[in-house]
Amino acid sequence: MPSNEKSVTVLGLGPMGRALAGAFLNAGARVTVWNRTPGREGDLTERGATVARSADEAVAGADLTVVCVVNYDAADSVLRREPVTAALRGRTLVNLTADTPARARDTAGWAGRHGIGYLDGAIMTPAATVGTPAAVFLHSGPDDLYQRHRPVLELLGGTHTHLGTDIGRAAAYDLALLDVFWTAMTGYAHALALAEAEGITAGELAPFAAGIAAILPPIFADSAANVDSGDFSGHDNPITSAASSMAHIVEASKAHGIDAGVMRAAAGLADRVIGEGHGADGFIRVAELLSRR
Amino acid sequence: MPSNEKSVTVLGLGPMGRALAGAFLNAGARVTVWNRTPGREGDLTERGATVARSADEAVAGADLTVVCVVNYDAADSVLRREPVTAALRGRTLVNLTADTPARARDTAGWAGRHGIGYLDGAIMTPAATVGTPAAVFLHSGPDDLYQRHRPVLELLGGTHTHLGTDIGRAAAYDLALLDVFWTAMTGYAHALALAEAEGITAGELAPFAAGIAAILPPIFADSAANVDSGDFSGHDNPITSAASSMAHIVEASKAHGIDAGVMRAAAGLADRVIGEGHGADGFIRVAELLSRR
Repeated sequence: MPSNEKSVTVLGLGPMGRALAGAFLNAGARVTVWNRTPGREGDLTERGATVARSADEAVAGADLTVVCVVNYDAADSVLRREPVTAALRGRTLVNLTADTPARARDTAGWAGRHGIGYLDGAIMTPAATVGTPAAVFLHSGPDDLYQRHRPVLELLGGTHTHLGTDIGRAAAYDLALLDVFWTAMTGYAHALALAEAEGITAGELAPFAAGIAAILPPIFADSAANVDSGDFSGHDNPITSAASSMAHIVEASKAHGIDAGVMRAAAGLADRVIGEGHGADGFIRVAELLSRR
Repeated sequence: MPSNEKSVTVLGLGPMGRALAGAFLNAGARVTVWNRTPGREGDLTERGATVARSADEAVAGADLTVVCVVNYDAADSVLRREPVTAALRGRTLVNLTADTPARARDTAGWAGRHGIGYLDGAIMTPAATVGTPAAVFLHSGPDDLYQRHRPVLELLGGTHTHLGTDIGRAAAYDLALLDVFWTAMTGYAHALALAEAEGITAGELAPFAAGIAAILPPIFADSAANVDSGDFSGHDNPITSAASSMAHIVEASKAHGIDAGVMRAAAGLADRVIGEGHGADGFIRVAELLSRR
């Protein structure tokens, strides 16, 4: 093989692992794959991937190993076995599995004790975006290690951001952003149920819901400035107005027999801010309330 | 005055009412305003507005009255008084106040009994967008009435959509869309608290959160198709994966002492779907769960 050919091992062949391996293959890398349950490689073999018989054999196939499984319990059960740990010594592991910052830090400790270069990362976009400009990857860990492996990681397409040397940072961003995402999706699911009860189809509501998503970015930016400055005043849309809307949503849900537990919990936060005498402030004061520990 | 000059009355001079009156003035309309608490007209008088001494005098000043107050209790306390109801007879009232579909239907009944033309509407964008192309207005009610007053309403700029003759429809869209908006904002507030606990500033997280908002519209559209077809299968991202992320968020919140009541309630819905044996389906099956009554 030519000395400048890039090689990489992918552990885990769920939808995301397969997407990662496929993108590496499309970019011309030499790819070794392994999955705990065999037979999940789909067409990756035809496309040129080598299927290893064991995780340690897979790891030995490249200087860089990317692991992407369901969570860190699953990752640990693959990585923290003697032959695999031994095979990883002197090589680099990029963990694109999603979990908490605490687990990322724990894994970095394990890697350090075993002479394994360790980068932690998060994939912020669906599997279908991998290999396209729409993919978003976040990375954290030692800068030299990141710079060394960046050319291989960038074969995955999209944007790659190194968030710094704190190994937990990618997981922290990931969790915070998934928090926004899954809470929003829960709101959308509830909105669809409420709409359906009022004779509005999901297809009718969706374009307007997309319009709501479109107004979020500038509001996110303004709200962030409020949070960072600690100044929540001067809002045309005070939190009392948000609380009024939230109460209407709970009331209409109740009238239709639709569970409004999520909105009740959200309204409870707004009510606490108002109860503390901050009713004229903007809604994002809820972040300050939650941050007080 | 020239016979083709458009005239309109605005009742309620909160931030949104002032924005409406200002946009009508900018568009060259003859504008009469009134607010329960006097002195809220700001610079509207200098800009040409007539300040009425009473709501009935205000209503008598134009064929079309727009009311925009905090909720329908407030609107009723202005409108359902004999002199105002009498002044409205034979004229048209557009209620841009936010409340529930049930309240909109109740108000339409009152209007019908008093010979008042009634349209219900909702403003989906912040006050600052009124008079600009970014404003989004939803309307419902009799088609002929809407068509007759459309030229005046369109002086407010932005897009105006007539959702149909069911008078509750604008309020139903409004509530469903506010459900998406306020749930998403609650998720963002929580994400900022979680990020802060991990040493990430709001300003650092905001651009990435904007990226999350950007991926929502196509996911909203795909999810809507699932809901309308009742087919939730074939997802690369099964609800078990969502539940795993949600559990990580709850766990990390707990580790930092951050209230995770909203995410717990959301995760509870996902768990119910999984408990029913639909773990391989997409997350939006939560809408179907909530719709079952």
